[in-house]
Amino acid sequence: MELKTIKKLMEKFANRKEQLYKQKEEGKKVFGMFCAYVPIELILAGNAIPVGLCGGKNDTIPIAEEDLPRNLCPLIKSSYGFKKAKSCPYFEVSDIVIGETTCEGKKKMFELMERLVPMHIMHLPHIKDEDSLKIWIKEVEKLKELIEKETDNEITEEKLKEMVDKVNRVRALFYKLYELRKNKPVPIKGIDVLKLFQFAYLLDIDDTIEILGDLIKELEEKVEKGEGFEGKRILITGCPMVAGNNKIVELIEEVGGVVVGEESCTGTRFFENFVEGYSIEDIAKRYFKIPCACRFKNDDRIENIKRLVKELNADGVVYCTLQYCHTFNVEGARVEEELKKEGIPVIRIETDYSESDKEQLKTRLEAFIEMI
Amino acid sequence: MELKTIKKLMEKFANRKEQLYKQKEEGKKVFGMFCAYVPIELILAGNAIPVGLCGGKNDTIPIAEEDLPRNLCPLIKSSYGFKKAKSCPYFEVSDIVIGETTCEGKKKMFELMERLVPMHIMHLPHIKDEDSLKIWIKEVEKLKELIEKETDNEITEEKLKEMVDKVNRVRALFYKLYELRKNKPVPIKGIDVLKLFQFAYLLDIDDTIEILGDLIKELEEKVEKGEGFEGKRILITGCPMVAGNNKIVELIEEVGGVVVGEESCTGTRFFENFVEGYSIEDIAKRYFKIPCACRFKNDDRIENIKRLVKELNADGVVYCTLQYCHTFNVEGARVEEELKKEGIPVIRIETDYSESDKEQLKTRLEAFIEMI
Ligand code: SF4
Ligand code: SF4
Ligand code: SF4
Ligand code: SF4
Repeated sequence: MELKTIKKLMEKFANRKEQLYKQKEEGKKVFGMFCAYVPIELILAGNAIPVGLCGGKNDTIPIAEEDLPRNLCPLIKSSYGFKKAKSCPYFEVSDIVIGETTCEGKKKMFELMERLVPMHIMHLPHIKDEDSLKIWIKEVEKLKELIEKETDNEITEEKLKEMVDKVNRVRALFYKLYELRKNKPVPIKGIDVLKLFQFAYLLDIDDTIEILGDLIKELEEKVEKGEGFEGKRILITGCPMVAGNNKIVELIEEVGGVVVGEESCTGTRFFENFVEGYSIEDIAKRYFKIPCACRFKNDDRIENIKRLVKELNADGVVYCTLQYCHTFNVEGARVEEELKKEGIPVIRIETDYSESDKEQLKTRLEAFIEMI
Repeated sequence: MELKTIKKLMEKFANRKEQLYKQKEEGKKVFGMFCAYVPIELILAGNAIPVGLCGGKNDTIPIAEEDLPRNLCPLIKSSYGFKKAKSCPYFEVSDIVIGETTCEGKKKMFELMERLVPMHIMHLPHIKDEDSLKIWIKEVEKLKELIEKETDNEITEEKLKEMVDKVNRVRALFYKLYELRKNKPVPIKGIDVLKLFQFAYLLDIDDTIEILGDLIKELEEKVEKGEGFEGKRILITGCPMVAGNNKIVELIEEVGGVVVGEESCTGTRFFENFVEGYSIEDIAKRYFKIPCACRFKNDDRIENIKRLVKELNADGVVYCTLQYCHTFNVEGARVEEELKKEGIPVIRIETDYSESDKEQLKTRLEAFIEMI
């Protein structure tokens, strides 16, 4: 029952390192990043390559803990550890790394990481008001200048237009994928979609577009035939689940659930909202809207979750936070409350990258899925 | 050997609630706050009363944990718990509470606290650049408008000037106190100075000025006579130690140390830098400089610590963080490194409001103090 396109995705991914090294040899610069707020249109328009560097593995955490506190989010520690251990090929080919002032753990970690790799930090303000948007627009302008300087390529209007359209194309394809997931049975498992999001941060954008196009065709056929997965339909929401961290989705789908959507940066926060125009301001505005819990008064996220539950015909919500992620954890209290008001079942789960809580989580998820 | 003035301080404090209720009955408004960034000059110029509401007690943490995650800084949980339990008289008399976007735990907690009490949030940006300063100046202007609206008092130039001078007077007195602490033996124990800072957030400002004036006279006499405390001279740095949380200072002074300074919001971050002028901009600029770890690139804090070690003739530094305080915890790595480069002994301690780690901390502090 494996999807052909997912097999192809895995092949593309297996081949990505080699392809990236080749692109680098041809003179392309590589920009590492840690966040969905980084406008990849600009990097692409500078004829450079964006790659996501968020760490999803436990192995690099011990070396990170030589410098970082233990009680810090595993994503932050894992990422830092990859650089310190020089064990992530994507990190090692990055010419420069773009950080941002989103959560404080990352923000302060960047002060240490700057000593290991050239970095540029974008200032994303706490608040979603007009003055903050002005700062953000300036930051996106500064990023453009930096890219031009680093790559020695001018980001022309034409090139920018081309890349805005291209990234919007990716977004449109993900919207289409989400459309298809509304079906009962759902034609694709959550674990496969998760891999798609994870690899979308790593693959060449043209490959991502190809894969998404193929996948949509394959899924349309399945929907036509009424094929797919039954089970309690789950919307996931919360912290990103970056490559290496599939635990929760795997568990949900082991115990009789099927993930039909993810309000997350490996999910809707990656693709929702198009860039509406071709100016720096238009680009900045799209990214500024991302409803991450690190923003103060992030109520649009709550609205989003409620909307997604309805649109995707979800039976329940699994709210996932990484340990010590204050922003998503505290915001969880309000999300839970708002969902309960609407009669939407919700369970809150906090985990890290270890395997030690797996059995316990399985029991809790099993009970939740039986209950709904 | 108890200082007369500290006895007087305790009396003033014991009497404060009654005095505050009376001031309220007379029509004064009370503004609660959680941070050293809130410009108290403005509150005073509105003929209102600023009170610090940061919680330093363990008792209110369980009720807070009904809404907040357990792995959140005890100061945040304790503060929220006091409001939820309605058990802090200062909180209960506050007409409005001023929050700020400093650390993310507080920022997100405020979203929950807003449901329990009227709040106003000031946007302090992450970064220390010119554009961020502009935002901050606007925020200070907005606070002025809010105070005028809430109190129905116009903040005239004259009134503002008076209060700028008055708060600067408090700062000058604390500078003088720090001058006196340079002496060997040091004429005052750290625990007494800590109480002074804690109560300075609560007392009527005129009482604080009176107490500080008396104290300085008393200490000058002691210095003249060569009286005071011997022991390893310790500079404390890190998270605030608000009323109720004296554990570390007490332990240091139990095992042969004497605290001669505190780079903290119950310390230098409370009083350093005068407001240099009488405009809103002048006020904003002074507060913008506070070197809190929640800011990105807070290097002036490191410089400050090194300077204080020299000025106060400290033998070593105790770097204190509250559990789960990411900003001070991560910044600690760089502070430790920089101090070690200069050959300054440093120990890093992470604690909460419980008593359970007391013995272990005592052993560590004892060893540190013997070693230096
Ligand atoms: S969760 Fe927030 S901070 Fe993390 S990648 Fe997404 S937008 Fe960035
Ligand atoms: S999961 Fe939370 S703490 Fe971790 S990097 Fe993302 S926002 Fe920061
Ligand atoms: S430590 Fe920072 S956030 Fe806390 S009171 Fe001081 S300035 Fe405010
Ligand atoms: S001690 Fe740290 S986490 Fe706690 S309120 Fe202050 S800055 Fe925030």
